[in-house]
Amino acid sequence: MSLFPTVAAFDDALASLPGADLACRVAAAARQGQLTKPAGSLGRLEEIAIFLAGWQRRARPHIDRGRAVIFAGNHGVARHGVSAFPPAVTAQMVANFAAGGAAINALAGAAGLDLQVVPIDLDRPTEDFTVAAAMGEADCLAALNCGADMVDPGLDLLLLGEMGIGNSTAAAALCQRSFGGSVAEWVGAGTGVDAHALAVKRQVVDLAMAHHAQAPMTPFETLRRVGGREIVAIAGAMLAARHRQVPVVLDGFICASALAPLAATTPAITDHVIAGHRSAEAGHGRLLDRLGLKPVLDLDMRLGEGSGGAVAVAVIRAAVAAHDQMATFADAGVSAGG
Amino acid sequence: MSLFPTVAAFDDALASLPGADLACRVAAAARQGQLTKPAGSLGRLEEIAIFLAGWQRRARPHIDRGRAVIFAGNHGVARHGVSAFPPAVTAQMVANFAAGGAAINALAGAAGLDLQVVPIDLDRPTEDFTVAAAMGEADCLAALNCGADMVDPGLDLLLLGEMGIGNSTAAAALCQRSFGGSVAEWVGAGTGVDAHALAVKRQVVDLAMAHHAQAPMTPFETLRRVGGREIVAIAGAMLAARHRQVPVVLDGFICASALAPLAATTPAITDHVIAGHRSAEAGHGRLLDRLGLKPVLDLDMRLGEGSGGAVAVAVIRAAVAAHDQMATFADAGVSAGG
Repeated sequence: MSLFPTVAAFDDALASLPGADLACRVAAAARQGQLTKPAGSLGRLEEIAIFLAGWQRRARPHIDRGRAVIFAGNHGVARHGVSAFPPAVTAQMVANFAAGGAAINALAGAAGLDLQVVPIDLDRPTEDFTVAAAMGEADCLAALNCGADMVDPGLDLLLLGEMGIGNSTAAAALCQRSFGGSVAEWVGAGTGVDAHALAVKRQVVDLAMAHHAQAPMTPFETLRRVGGREIVAIAGAMLAARHRQVPVVLDGFICASALAPLAATTPAITDHVIAGHRSAEAGHGRLLDRLGLKPVLDLDMRLGEGSGGAVAVAVIRAAVAAHDQMATFADAGVSAGG
Repeated sequence: MSLFPTVAAFDDALASLPGADLACRVAAAARQGQLTKPAGSLGRLEEIAIFLAGWQRRARPHIDRGRAVIFAGNHGVARHGVSAFPPAVTAQMVANFAAGGAAINALAGAAGLDLQVVPIDLDRPTEDFTVAAAMGEADCLAALNCGADMVDPGLDLLLLGEMGIGNSTAAAALCQRSFGGSVAEWVGAGTGVDAHALAVKRQVVDLAMAHHAQAPMTPFETLRRVGGREIVAIAGAMLAARHRQVPVVLDGFICASALAPLAATTPAITDHVIAGHRSAEAGHGRLLDRLGLKPVLDLDMRLGEGSGGAVAVAVIRAAVAAHDQMATFADAGVSAGG
């Protein structure tokens, strides 16, 4: 049985978000205060350990079952020439993932993550959202459920990533429709386009905003109209993860854009989410600010496919190791500061 | 035979710094351009892989032999109450390192580093440098050689860290004497002192600057007069690493301060060095700017003992994995962008 059989079921899931386990958070914070270091001196590592404790519902979190899921989709809007790469590259890169030759293969391996790649109807691009909704309702629900299906309840950590030529344009449209502002704030160079293509991207987003201006401003309608299947799947996975107590690590701008329509109505949707990094894409930092997320890394990456998030998982593992393995002042016979 | 038998040998080593292997750098950069990703899209990871290629002198760098060395020393200046912790904590933490209970044990383990802890004459603190030189010449040379001895020529990567109650005051003095500016710019809260102790730290550095004002402004004299044994050992290890083709990862403010006197006369000393992170210590970012180093991480850490650098090694391993394992466009049959 799928998690989102109807739009109403999706809306209900978004309206009834469970919280973290406060007792586990408190226990983890207390443990951090007893470990042999000045209080707070591990900075973000301490915050991450306490965050994981709350969402994993255990005072000593671990990452035995960490999974990276990369969703792939094709975009009707790619016909406008919004990417430096042809649409065929989406399927070529999915083959590269399967063969183990992409960045995410190396980086998920280095981070100790099980990697799953989920191409969604690559031979059936979404509609060009400057003139139509990207997807029909059934199509959008199918993509949400495709994402939710990848979230096994026993996972300790879920990294979400994407591949889809043209999808930074969809991401910009999602941000623009969710948060407003000027189109130029949300449209960036993606994997690397020239000034002409950048102008085309902006125009495409402008046209999309005009075309869908009268449509209902609900999270589902925004995803359906200007999203893409891989982005919608990320939204579905993120919402399923919340209900299944699985903390989520996001990759870059496109992953975060999946959250934008949900967060616009329900800011608490980001509570179980770690932003793995801030990418070089101009709108990403702005979007993370809107989502209230502070990135773990800032390494000028702009590849997507989960790559920045996978590097962040190495930092998250360090946080877990310190939290779990360090001695307390009492155990070690070290004088606490005063 | 020690690397630095005399002060002149130290000066000579600093005056004759070998460079990276340019052919290996070029080969690594060419490889990055052929891997299945938009050129430059792995950002800092690409820079790190190319950096390692140059210093390891191989186009495909690896980290099979990575070592963390934590030097520990005690400081006469601690008598002024410049730390939130009593000086006995230095030896207690060395025992904690030996027992495996400190943050660096967990973090070096997570980063796949062999951990070596080197306490240097803990029962013999340096002199109080507000009224005397911290060390005599023979003592300072011994500390330099103690550092150099930890740098086996076959190492692939060397992480340097420190432990020493009071040593952020020595670090501030080293920065102030090397680069000038106001004392307030270099003196911070360390592992966490109150406003009174902070004022004392500033006064101590002022007194030190006045006491040593007429002394020669050479790297050796600055290290000897206002350094500490663990800091001098780091300087020795860093210089030895340069001559032995071992790339270095620095931890925080105190590690970087060991470089300050050397960089003040010889800016190229930092070329084989990666700044692992920017710590929460106020002067650290300023010091990294002066050294021309861009930190890998910025996680609000302020513990020392190599902890931030060890987390950075996880990122460096990710860079190496992507560089080594990814397929090229030709291998994978993926269309390159244009």
